[in-house]
Amino acid sequence: MSERVVLAYSGGLDTSVAIPFLAEKMDAEVIAVALDLGQGGEDMDVIRKRALDCGAAESVVVDAKEEFAADFCVPALRANALYMDRYPLVSSLSRPLIVKHLVAAAERFGGTVVSHGCTGKGNDQVRFEAGLAALAPGLRVVAPARDFAWTRDKAIEFAEDKGLPIETTKRNPFSIDQNLWGRAIETGFLEDIWNGPTEDVYAYTADPAAPREPDEVVITFERGVPAALDGRPLTPYQVIDELNRRAGAHGVGRIDLVEDRLVGIKSREVYEAPGAVALITAHMELENVTVERDLARFKRGVDQRWSELVYDGLWFSPLKDALDAFVADAQKHVSGDVRMTLHGGRATVTGRRSGQSLYDFSLATYDTGDSFDQSLARGFVQLFSLPAKIAAARDARHG
Amino acid sequence: MSERVVLAYSGGLDTSVAIPFLAEKMDAEVIAVALDLGQGGEDMDVIRKRALDCGAAESVVVDAKEEFAADFCVPALRANALYMDRYPLVSSLSRPLIVKHLVAAAERFGGTVVSHGCTGKGNDQVRFEAGLAALAPGLRVVAPARDFAWTRDKAIEFAEDKGLPIETTKRNPFSIDQNLWGRAIETGFLEDIWNGPTEDVYAYTADPAAPREPDEVVITFERGVPAALDGRPLTPYQVIDELNRRAGAHGVGRIDLVEDRLVGIKSREVYEAPGAVALITAHMELENVTVERDLARFKRGVDQRWSELVYDGLWFSPLKDALDAFVADAQKHVSGDVRMTLHGGRATVTGRRSGQSLYDFSLATYDTGDSFDQSLARGFVQLFSLPAKIAAARDARHG
Amino acid sequence: MSERVVLAYSGGLDTSVAIPFLAEKMDAEVIAVALDLGQGGEDMDVIRKRALDCGAAESVVVDAKEEFAADFCVPALRANALYMDRYPLVSSLSRPLIVKHLVAAAERFGGTVVSHGCTGKGNDQVRFEAGLAALAPGLRVVAPARDFAWTRDKAIEFAEDKGLPIETTKRNPFSIDQNLWGRAIETGFLEDIWNGPTEDVYAYTADPAAPREPDEVVITFERGVPAALDGRPLTPYQVIDELNRRAGAHGVGRIDLVEDRLVGIKSREVYEAPGAVALITAHMELENVTVERDLARFKRGVDQRWSELVYDGLWFSPLKDALDAFVADAQKHVSGDVRMTLHGGRATVTGRRSGQSLYDFSLATYDTGDSFDQSLARGFVQLFSLPAKIAAARDARHG
Amino acid sequence: MSERVVLAYSGGLDTSVAIPFLAEKMDAEVIAVALDLGQGGEDMDVIRKRALDCGAAESVVVDAKEEFAADFCVPALRANALYMDRYPLVSSLSRPLIVKHLVAAAERFGGTVVSHGCTGKGNDQVRFEAGLAALAPGLRVVAPARDFAWTRDKAIEFAEDKGLPIETTKRNPFSIDQNLWGRAIETGFLEDIWNGPTEDVYAYTADPAAPREPDEVVITFERGVPAALDGRPLTPYQVIDELNRRAGAHGVGRIDLVEDRLVGIKSREVYEAPGAVALITAHMELENVTVERDLARFKRGVDQRWSELVYDGLWFSPLKDALDAFVADAQKHVSGDVRMTLHGGRATVTGRRSGQSLYDFSLATYDTGDSFDQSLARGFVQLFSLPAKIAAARDARHG
Repeated sequence: MSERVVLAYSGGLDTSVAIPFLAEKMDAEVIAVALDLGQGGEDMDVIRKRALDCGAAESVVVDAKEEFAADFCVPALRANALYMDRYPLVSSLSRPLIVKHLVAAAERFGGTVVSHGCTGKGNDQVRFEAGLAALAPGLRVVAPARDFAWTRDKAIEFAEDKGLPIETTKRNPFSIDQNLWGRAIETGFLEDIWNGPTEDVYAYTADPAAPREPDEVVITFERGVPAALDGRPLTPYQVIDELNRRAGAHGVGRIDLVEDRLVGIKSREVYEAPGAVALITAHMELENVTVERDLARFKRGVDQRWSELVYDGLWFSPLKDALDAFVADAQKHVSGDVRMTLHGGRATVTGRRSGQSLYDFSLATYDTGDSFDQSLARGFVQLFSLPAKIAAARDARHG
Repeated sequence: MSERVVLAYSGGLDTSVAIPFLAEKMDAEVIAVALDLGQGGEDMDVIRKRALDCGAAESVVVDAKEEFAADFCVPALRANALYMDRYPLVSSLSRPLIVKHLVAAAERFGGTVVSHGCTGKGNDQVRFEAGLAALAPGLRVVAPARDFAWTRDKAIEFAEDKGLPIETTKRNPFSIDQNLWGRAIETGFLEDIWNGPTEDVYAYTADPAAPREPDEVVITFERGVPAALDGRPLTPYQVIDELNRRAGAHGVGRIDLVEDRLVGIKSREVYEAPGAVALITAHMELENVTVERDLARFKRGVDQRWSELVYDGLWFSPLKDALDAFVADAQKHVSGDVRMTLHGGRATVTGRRSGQSLYDFSLATYDTGDSFDQSLARGFVQLFSLPAKIAAARDARHG
Repeated sequence: MSERVVLAYSGGLDTSVAIPFLAEKMDAEVIAVALDLGQGGEDMDVIRKRALDCGAAESVVVDAKEEFAADFCVPALRANALYMDRYPLVSSLSRPLIVKHLVAAAERFGGTVVSHGCTGKGNDQVRFEAGLAALAPGLRVVAPARDFAWTRDKAIEFAEDKGLPIETTKRNPFSIDQNLWGRAIETGFLEDIWNGPTEDVYAYTADPAAPREPDEVVITFERGVPAALDGRPLTPYQVIDELNRRAGAHGVGRIDLVEDRLVGIKSREVYEAPGAVALITAHMELENVTVERDLARFKRGVDQRWSELVYDGLWFSPLKDALDAFVADAQKHVSGDVRMTLHGGRATVTGRRSGQSLYDFSLATYDTGDSFDQSLARGFVQLFSLPAKIAAARDARHG
Repeated sequence: MSERVVLAYSGGLDTSVAIPFLAEKMDAEVIAVALDLGQGGEDMDVIRKRALDCGAAESVVVDAKEEFAADFCVPALRANALYMDRYPLVSSLSRPLIVKHLVAAAERFGGTVVSHGCTGKGNDQVRFEAGLAALAPGLRVVAPARDFAWTRDKAIEFAEDKGLPIETTKRNPFSIDQNLWGRAIETGFLEDIWNGPTEDVYAYTADPAAPREPDEVVITFERGVPAALDGRPLTPYQVIDELNRRAGAHGVGRIDLVEDRLVGIKSREVYEAPGAVALITAHMELENVTVERDLARFKRGVDQRWSELVYDGLWFSPLKDALDAFVADAQKHVSGDVRMTLHGGRATVTGRRSGQSLYDFSLATYDTGDSFDQSLARGFVQLFSLPAKIAAARDARHG
């Protein structure tokens, strides 16, 4: 029996052509595995059948929407994960989940090789292979684009030669990756970093400059997990999905930056992540209300490291586990409501309330009812600044 | 000769009434010192005369606009200073400069006591007194509101009794502090954190939702210092001042958060900082283009600590100096242009170019001309993920 | 019925005199609470009776040795807690436990006030009062030395006036605090920081320079908890107690440093902590063997923050809880044996073995059997150093 | 004219054999470059001639002792550089300096290729090649051991075939690297991490357990740079060299640990670094006396990152430069004397004095003359612990 290759299958040109290519090149049977990560677009069953039409021995579609939301997007939200303070880790979050299902398919179908469509200069190869190294070190990895220098032009030619049932003429100028948590766009004229993105780049978000009425939403969190919108209890997937639509309709969550890739180069990336950006904004403000100062200050460093680690493909790693334990503890009290206005590209918090609030009106108010004992301040100020004072006196002595 | 008290004078009710109050209470002569920090509003000469009318022995106005911009706002910009990732340190930046000029006035006029209008539950008392402890530890500090439990109601009564030339009837419901870098609004109905801010809270920014045409601006930085707008060379003060107007006209820079005060309580703060927010946004993106990855990652922690330290009143401190040395070195190459669109409350970067760019088109492009050697990736991926792989194998062994 | 004051009682002069002093000054009944924290020295029952002889209404002794070891020393060990890289937090660890038992006694005996013997310039006042603020914010705190300016000379005079059953003549020149985790010595001629400590300063450790035969010990850890010595299963208390004797006999664990106190001053402190130092040394090396690199690097920062936080009195705080969650996760695999030689003031690791080891002989060896694929290195080296290389090329371009 | 290869030449078997091997394999002329880094051992002129005898076209010896001490060891000392809190970066520090002189030799002799003897599983290949990438990206690198799978057995066979003037029979069981800052020993029976090192492993240090009289030394620092011993002004090289002898005579500075290599594996390393360990110990204590608390706390993280970065081969990198700027600023006041006792494997600080001291006897003393105002403490304690108190009250409310 020939070797079986489990392929991460998207339904697009590259991975469709990879099916017969791998079968031929490796004298193997190809098992196509596609995940529904809430990316929208084509019907998943059409995708499943296309793989078979291209010659896959087996073709599997996994509905991973709820799993992706609960186990990948929610941890990112609890860590306010924004790589370089901007990018909500759209693709970085999906890769470890795809790896998990590739490994499951390899076990189920007797696969010994795993294949993905990533190139050798992107981050996703690392995310795939670091994940596989952790979950199934025995599986071999083949990445045609990288390992066989397989280019898009070659793929199109190959598809036409073989008469594959794939449309090869209409070519999107951009490289796109999308899922429930957002959409990533790169290449094309965006590679000139002085060029601004044009409106046609976007699919999840409407033009923020278009006139329309604002939308107001109340997001409820329980221990850092989004649990309801406007009082309606929802699963994390439902919350994100609805906010993608509502915040997207107001142009919320467009991001455009020059980004530090793990492989050592800078690249220009455009994202749109309406639900993610609205949720992270709301979550950060609820933390402001419910998380104690020292914890909040330290957590910023934890959040940054979490984001870098996941961006760098180390989802399955001991440090990630320990950071998750920290974050989980820090979320114990992050429960309550945040009211936001979605409008004109902005998701603006206008109110917050929580039974776990550390905001104490009687301590904070300047009106009657103030319970703060101002007589304590003098001693605090003097001892708090004593080290700097002693140092300044020393400096003065020494000019 | 009676003692001389140098008073940080704003021209407002509280510090105006403090003049005769301190004179009487301490049997002292009061020297009023007011700073023009680009806050706009009343004519500074009117303020100077009001102090004299209230009984000040001397009244001084210092034009500190350029000094404030160059020596306080620019360092904050180079550190992307956003306390709690949001607040650009408006009041925190002005206090050390005010202290500097109070100390100079004390030397010039023979003052032995310094006075400020801060209460015992805010941050500004710490900023004043930590600064004074560092610059002039020999000066005594008196804060009537805190040390003599002097309230606004008492102040109004006192003003009316003495027939002071101050309008005491029209009372702003909010407590306001403003300067070139932004404007801070607190108290009033905002103390209920479920209430959203109303439009009348704002003075530096127009309603972002109002329809208008976008404004496009090109900001030029030299070593992290803003040096030109749309090609016109300007001083830092001029850049900030012009961007306050242009970004403010589009409602950029409104901030509303629950904030961790140094004295240990949470308070609700509203800010508007159109120029600061536009500049920090542009500066961060120029750093993305010109700062190497490891340095950029570490600098986030430095920036955070810088912001916390300055928020906490420790502008004059050894750690602040050492962080400044780090930041100065990190800005060596942060030179170039950033193009932004100001519109609808958003300051959006649309382009960046720099002779110091680390973005290398030939390494980044997916088109022809690609100079990235993909054959290096496999070794990189495998050794990069080796520690996590070994750990995963260990975990697998131990269930 | 008169108010009841619960006093943290050590049995020494100061807290003994505090009993009648507090009773008189506050017209109150005093409840003396003493803890056995493994400090050795006087019989705890003698201490209990002395309090009654001094006029205490109730006198309680709590055997807290195992609790202290398991719940306070072990967490410190797992965090390799060394304040300023040197001090194993001897007193800092005991204060929160004393607070816990003071609160329990207040509940049991109807106390409404809590009292301790700390001065206003040390760290321990903060540890007591921060702990009480967290555990029992309703209790009032009285610190005679600080709040009533009660000095040792006054105490001696008072004791003699009242004919208290306390020896007041023989006065130790040092201020001492000791428990299972170590012993702290300050004041006296040590306040001149150019003076070295003399041999009589020490009680837990023998002169390291005295000639003797080395002692070899094998310490077994389970998930970061010391569980056996030389193969004999022991409780944490037993491990620490035995190592205090064995490592102490070889002069291990003497520490002498200038230390940054929380109240803003530098002080000179001498410690001896033979068991703590031996255990932390062994534990760090076992972590080197069993903890993955990225986790180990990040944990150093966590350990430092943990140490500072506990030193600063914030044992009961949200950040401490979250750091504990991180550390607990990081200890999952810290199991195995460490062999040490105790001799001449040194506790030297000579061997380590663990079923959870990440040291892989076949990857590490330079002998036959090497399984490391050196062909991967070139790609790794080149991409790992690519960002620095691009930056260097930029720098070269710009001189 | 044939290509010229500049070889980092140690005088040992591997690089001696590499001379004819490279000449033959690459049809090139070999330029041997050896550095005197204070490693002691063979006469440098003998080494120079051996290269010529092995067929080098040119052979250069560079006396880099003072440069190494001043520009590499001193920065490490100022950063208290101890990788994994233990290893003072012996080899890591020399590699960038060797690179610098290789590049200079390539320029002088028209070299286009650079060669080193490192394998593909160690750290030094990264240090060499990252350094070369930064300083001379145009030079090609060849590492015979890694790139041509050139092993020691092959080298011996080759040497015997060619009749090279190298002793190939007496084989040290260990792999050794040594310079002024210390000596590194690995492989052999040490690869079994349960084995302790034997006495013959060491060359820089005498047996710490041997009886002898203690040695007392006073080290003077100026701005963190060691400047005198016992009052005699010395260069950094002279200080380190003398302390290597004096501290080495007492067995100071032996280190044995399992270490995380950059290439992703754990290895067992033994070091001896008597001068480095004595100096770092003294320097840390002088920082305790002269560096303000907040700066000292933050600097620990900077020191750790500095150590990791240099260990990882990124000496020439933007982050290293910015960390150096931080450290330089932090050393402004690190001047003064530290008195140490060297004995029995320990370098123990017994006294410190500095005109820049922040230790204030009058604030610290518990004797008469105390200038600390204890009445300030109550306010400080209460506001310092207020956030934890509010959080504890919240937790109590919610069980």
